[in-house]
Amino acid sequence: MLPGPVPMPERVRAAMMRQAINHRGKEFSGIYADCVRILKTAFGTENDLFVISGSGTASMEAAVGNFGRGRKIACLVNGKFGERLFKMSQRYGTAIEIASEWGTPLDLGRLEKELSAGAEMVTLVHNETSAGIKNPAEKVGKLARKYDALFVMDGITSIAGDVVKSDAWGVDIAVVGSQKCLAAPAGLSAISVSSRAWERMTEPRPFYLDLAAYKKSASATLMETPYTPAVPLFLALREACLLIDEEGLPARIERHRRMSEAVRAAAKAWGLPLFAQTDADHEYSNTATAIRTPAGIEDSEFRGTIKKMGIEIAGGQDHLKGKIFRIGSMGAVSAPEILATLAAVQFALKKHGYTPKGDGVMAAAGVLG
Amino acid sequence: MLPGPVPMPERVRAAMMRQAINHRGKEFSGIYADCVRILKTAFGTENDLFVISGSGTASMEAAVGNFGRGRKIACLVNGKFGERLFKMSQRYGTAIEIASEWGTPLDLGRLEKELSAGAEMVTLVHNETSAGIKNPAEKVGKLARKYDALFVMDGITSIAGDVVKSDAWGVDIAVVGSQKCLAAPAGLSAISVSSRAWERMTEPRPFYLDLAAYKKSASATLMETPYTPAVPLFLALREACLLIDEEGLPARIERHRRMSEAVRAAAKAWGLPLFAQTDADHEYSNTATAIRTPAGIEDSEFRGTIKKMGIEIAGGQDHLKGKIFRIGSMGAVSAPEILATLAAVQFALKKHGYTPKGDGVMAAAGVLG
Repeated sequence: MLPGPVPMPERVRAAMMRQAINHRGKEFSGIYADCVRILKTAFGTENDLFVISGSGTASMEAAVGNFGRGRKIACLVNGKFGERLFKMSQRYGTAIEIASEWGTPLDLGRLEKELSAGAEMVTLVHNETSAGIKNPAEKVGKLARKYDALFVMDGITSIAGDVVKSDAWGVDIAVVGSQKCLAAPAGLSAISVSSRAWERMTEPRPFYLDLAAYKKSASATLMETPYTPAVPLFLALREACLLIDEEGLPARIERHRRMSEAVRAAAKAWGLPLFAQTDADHEYSNTATAIRTPAGIEDSEFRGTIKKMGIEIAGGQDHLKGKIFRIGSMGAVSAPEILATLAAVQFALKKHGYTPKGDGVMAAAGVLG
Repeated sequence: MLPGPVPMPERVRAAMMRQAINHRGKEFSGIYADCVRILKTAFGTENDLFVISGSGTASMEAAVGNFGRGRKIACLVNGKFGERLFKMSQRYGTAIEIASEWGTPLDLGRLEKELSAGAEMVTLVHNETSAGIKNPAEKVGKLARKYDALFVMDGITSIAGDVVKSDAWGVDIAVVGSQKCLAAPAGLSAISVSSRAWERMTEPRPFYLDLAAYKKSASATLMETPYTPAVPLFLALREACLLIDEEGLPARIERHRRMSEAVRAAAKAWGLPLFAQTDADHEYSNTATAIRTPAGIEDSEFRGTIKKMGIEIAGGQDHLKGKIFRIGSMGAVSAPEILATLAAVQFALKKHGYTPKGDGVMAAAGVLG
């Protein structure tokens, strides 16, 4: 129940057992094309889309490294992954950090100031799992367009689990990771690129992550990758994408929303505040929920008790270590996993000295039942 | 029978079926440590070694991108992968191409001139599969040391299939790919870094491929990767490494050598010249053999006939398309695969109008039997 990597359906895992195939052949081309077709739906885009053999971080670097070299980049930061994007941007351009406390609303007024002062690119983490907050991608997209800046959106933990409309929101470059809402194995990521972005490529670009090379290889008669792809992971990703198609994207998103709603209902019943601060623009994440750990509970003992029952939840990262715990509801997660997890958490809360105000498990069941 | 990707033993493939595990835990740490321990033997090194979730190209970029920024880089080129390293070097430093015709000896005299004129890094492809030639790594290493330059060696297709002594040869940075002699799935690579190299890191570095981050994550109590690793591929690589340990590295190298010797014996019997030009310093590759296609034989028809028998061999790349064919003898390949391949090739040669001078299959059997 981590906010990724998540358990994989058997069909996805079994796909990796296959013997090696030539990645410069017709079969691989079809596998890659299937992934791209279904991922475009999840991204809400008709733009070019590529699968990269590397984690979400690799694709985020591709965004900044292909389009941000030497540019003024405004980086919205209210969590760990926003920070990472800022650090990455510093290696390629002039990065401006627009920082809020983790889990609190972004400063869109400051963003507009930076844009009017000449920022040429905006980076945003749509769904910040480190703090359980969902950031206002559509609003940021509008601001970016108003000032003709490129909009890079980390959708690593939202795409295929929450509503994402890259094209409608004006996202120029969006990224997803394989081991999150897609429920595929870790090790792949996908990136979409708008025509506006293609017109503004910068130089010099990274080599392994040079998107011009990905475009060239994907446009040939056979759809290929420029360098050797992680073939077993592509086979698994294709199965994961087919499963999304079979479930139906709207049903999948609704399932994610309900599972997170159930977790939030449990926290409320326990009397534990959610970590994220929402407002008119910022919502709770629908794929990962961050809950404040009650005073006096020691994080590793608390999570250790839960792990004894075979369930793994996440702690806080960096300065939030010990202060929050996080429950992912990504991928194939459904009611049984959520109920079992909340029961284990409720037991651990009591065991380690916190008396829940009410029955969180039953509150969640009320949402799910 | 491609020069990679190669068929994987069942144990290696089966390892990928496992359910997702937390890559920030004790178990993953042990898996990573097993890989590193066995790979160090195959590299012939006691230097730091990391596994990167990305193909050999990613690790080669890590070499140039972490240690070559702004440097004068002398690139030895006698094949496709040497060319790639040169192009990569151009993105980071001042790259000097020391080019020979593909498959012909390198110009070590010119290398010494460039070194004495201030080149700070040398790049070499140890085993150039595009032309079937093995380049003199030890000699290049001596020259690099003489002029105190860093020595980057692409061992992607030699390590674990041929003798490699990184430390004894003065290699500062060596790289291997997973889908070649290791017989693991495509998608991982490994890189070793000497203390001399660590002292000379350059800035700014790539982000996903920042080796300082890999070092930090590998040195913690639990051995980790800085970003999400391709977990199923690590599980498979560990099995592949254990198989190397079980076979014994010297036996494995000797097997590769004999298989290639058998292929060369067949070519000789057929009266077909090998493509590589050897001399006192340059040998035939022991993991991939390039043979000149007889005049009048159309490459895709010829290889199509072989493919009909369920065997895939490689053609020439770039300007060598149609002029050579290449037989890999990497990984788990043993006598049955070699004999079947050579029988299919011999049949296809005859079918498409070339009358072999002699019986290559029996010549190969003479080496193997």
